[in-house]
Amino acid sequence: MEEKLVFLLAFVIPLSCSAPPPNFVVFLADDLGYGDLSSYGHPTIITPNIDSLAATGTKFTQFYSAYPICTPSRSGLLTGRLPVRNGIFTDHSYPIDMAFRVFLPSNTGGLPSDEVTIPQVLKQGGYNSALIGKWHLGHVSCLPTERGFDEFFGLPYAQDEGCAPYFCPEEDRLLSWPGVPLYNNTKIIEQPVNLNTLTPRYNERALDFITRNKDNPFFLFMSYDEVHVPLFASKDFLNTSVRGLYGDATLEMDASVGLIMNKLKELNLTNNTLVVFTSDNGAWTRKELDGGSNGLLRGQKGETYEGGIRVPTIFSWPGKIPSGKVSMSLGSHLDLLATFAELASVKLPNRTLDSYSLGPLLLQDKESPRETVFYYRGKTLMAVRYRNFKAHFVTRSGWGEDPPIRHDPPILYNLGTDPSEQYPLQAKQYETVIDQITKIAQDHTKSVLPLPKSQLDEMEDFNKNIPPCCQLKPV
Amino acid sequence: MEEKLVFLLAFVIPLSCSAPPPNFVVFLADDLGYGDLSSYGHPTIITPNIDSLAATGTKFTQFYSAYPICTPSRSGLLTGRLPVRNGIFTDHSYPIDMAFRVFLPSNTGGLPSDEVTIPQVLKQGGYNSALIGKWHLGHVSCLPTERGFDEFFGLPYAQDEGCAPYFCPEEDRLLSWPGVPLYNNTKIIEQPVNLNTLTPRYNERALDFITRNKDNPFFLFMSYDEVHVPLFASKDFLNTSVRGLYGDATLEMDASVGLIMNKLKELNLTNNTLVVFTSDNGAWTRKELDGGSNGLLRGQKGETYEGGIRVPTIFSWPGKIPSGKVSMSLGSHLDLLATFAELASVKLPNRTLDSYSLGPLLLQDKESPRETVFYYRGKTLMAVRYRNFKAHFVTRSGWGEDPPIRHDPPILYNLGTDPSEQYPLQAKQYETVIDQITKIAQDHTKSVLPLPKSQLDEMEDFNKNIPPCCQLKPV
Repeated sequence: MEEKLVFLLAFVIPLSCSAPPPNFVVFLADDLGYGDLSSYGHPTIITPNIDSLAATGTKFTQFYSAYPICTPSRSGLLTGRLPVRNGIFTDHSYPIDMAFRVFLPSNTGGLPSDEVTIPQVLKQGGYNSALIGKWHLGHVSCLPTERGFDEFFGLPYAQDEGCAPYFCPEEDRLLSWPGVPLYNNTKIIEQPVNLNTLTPRYNERALDFITRNKDNPFFLFMSYDEVHVPLFASKDFLNTSVRGLYGDATLEMDASVGLIMNKLKELNLTNNTLVVFTSDNGAWTRKELDGGSNGLLRGQKGETYEGGIRVPTIFSWPGKIPSGKVSMSLGSHLDLLATFAELASVKLPNRTLDSYSLGPLLLQDKESPRETVFYYRGKTLMAVRYRNFKAHFVTRSGWGEDPPIRHDPPILYNLGTDPSEQYPLQAKQYETVIDQITKIAQDHTKSVLPLPKSQLDEMEDFNKNIPPCCQLKPV
Repeated sequence: MEEKLVFLLAFVIPLSCSAPPPNFVVFLADDLGYGDLSSYGHPTIITPNIDSLAATGTKFTQFYSAYPICTPSRSGLLTGRLPVRNGIFTDHSYPIDMAFRVFLPSNTGGLPSDEVTIPQVLKQGGYNSALIGKWHLGHVSCLPTERGFDEFFGLPYAQDEGCAPYFCPEEDRLLSWPGVPLYNNTKIIEQPVNLNTLTPRYNERALDFITRNKDNPFFLFMSYDEVHVPLFASKDFLNTSVRGLYGDATLEMDASVGLIMNKLKELNLTNNTLVVFTSDNGAWTRKELDGGSNGLLRGQKGETYEGGIRVPTIFSWPGKIPSGKVSMSLGSHLDLLATFAELASVKLPNRTLDSYSLGPLLLQDKESPRETVFYYRGKTLMAVRYRNFKAHFVTRSGWGEDPPIRHDPPILYNLGTDPSEQYPLQAKQYETVIDQITKIAQDHTKSVLPLPKSQLDEMEDFNKNIPPCCQLKPV
């Protein structure tokens, strides 16, 4: 009888029936590798604030970004759709495709206006949303406030994308290295941005946003510029880490997480806020000591081995999500949209989504609804994970000049026994698995056709003046 | 005034003045790598019981075993002296030295009787000590009960050391594969040991030992045979881990840790017991999927890169040692003897020790007294770590046939910025550091002379009958 009652209760109570809708805080690191936090095994980067999210929440060991590089990755997180569906991919092929991987200052494309973002979905529930930090989804009529956020304070793209002289017309050459602009909503307030004071300003804005919205549901997207190159840290953090500047930058981000968590606590919001910490893609190990570590995972940012796309990810919501738990369940940034929508009791956009709600997994210890991961490079489906098996149909180094190599049968790994992708399985012994994954790949490939217009290929003529690069003065 | 008083109190109260002496439980895994626990970043081996020690205690990220292979490593842990001092080294040189790395059934050497072990030191304080599991410090008149332990239940050496036919005289050939014996104190109770039921029997004996000693200070040394090859797991754990048999074995060990911790709790001993979890050396990655992972560390068991000798290590003592802390402080198995002696308020043996008490570090957040690590292969000092710098004077692959290579100047790494030993520093820019480490190496080398008699080189004539290999019946 008791058992039946429990079942009944679990059945009839929706996930967020009686409580007010939760706030969402997403901390997104930039290029932070799978092995770069002490809670994920780093020996000399000790991150007590982020680790504390793991202690009070659930640490995921098999969580994925939508794509192994910044711009497409972020498009997937915000729309719940793979880049190949939302337009943030390149239509170019090898070798030209190397030039069209992220939005550069010269790009005029952006997240299409008919895509629906998390803040737009949450607006149905009265949420206010802020993006603080890096955007990287287009800067020509496509800033965050034009794509669903109520507020934006941050950079349009990565801090290594200062404008090259050839972006500007001859007569503007003296103004041709203005560096990266800092925006407040749609207004440039500093150019070039002073990186050495940037994170404290992000913090200030974040605390202010939370305070202003304490009586209102909110979505805070802290999209750190750490730890992308060029590395930087403000004076309180410079030379504080034995890991060097990479460590300094990570510690500054960790401290920022701590400040924000303290503010939530101070305002009694901790128990009504779902917090997610994650990274946009794997560490860029080719940057040597300026790049991070992907721990025991193979590969790096830009590659479709696990090190490129599997990211340290922690969910914390005290009293709701189990504390101190480690979960091997599959999950993806793509799932945040459906998860947040369910928890906020708002409707999903009416379109093909690649997003599964992880609500039942997080709150009721159910199995993850996600069983597949699709690994893309541009419009090419490189690999597919199905449960513990991963098949590489095409491989290619992330940054070399080597052409893609197609594999038939695919190179198959068991990521459960062999998380480092070192020991390919014998195709003959795994014919059923290969057939199964091949079918999944084929069905998926059909499902993304016809491809939308590529946004990454939209580029101004280099002879024309590209805003905002060539304007030194604030607009 | 208040500040002065605190200082005074801290000064006059010895570490364990008022409280009864603490119990010590050391969980020692076999060949478990730096990256093989979920608390150290493994994605598919989830170890909640061991991780829980980290949550209630302090996780060390730069803790070392005394040597990168089993037998010498254990000799260092138990004596607080480097193998080159306590006799557990080989006097042979390349390439013959490969055959004299651990005690084999044919060896007649053992931990010299004039060495003083942790249980002997603790006996001054009335401690009872048990070794449950693997010994590997000699089996001819040199079992654990002959070297300070009150009880022994386990194997004399590794489970891959069943006796080869040539160990036995011709007439005994039919009895020549008896396999590894299981001892109860000095008596063989099973030969060959049934590995599939071994760990549950260890557990039973451990719980019994704790119960029998609940009113008496004790030292329990749980020296697991997991996860040395050949891997094994009892039926409750077989096929339970997605990591395969390696995972099954690790989960069985993790569950054993949980059982023992529960027993301590049940008997109200948790707050008076210092628990240490560690491993005897790095993972043996050349065993492919039967070997573990050293995470982001370079190298493996048998090598003097970090992956061979840096081990996952957790100290837990609720109320005494900070909980949920991650420490980068240097420490070594060699330090357990001095640490335990201080905490138990007993005298150190009167001889040269390589052991520093970590008591003040653990209990009072003081700096670690350890600033150096000496990396040996046989009698050769291969490398020295001083603070964050490590100099490789000699390198050699762990298992290949290549000869040692001497480096002058040494290959220098900064393990703080470069924990994976990937980017050698320019000798010219680090002359002072190299001079400093070279001086430390020279002084240390002098300090170990004259070398004691090598125990690993003591071997029976293969034509003679070697006990206990060639006796199938219990003795």
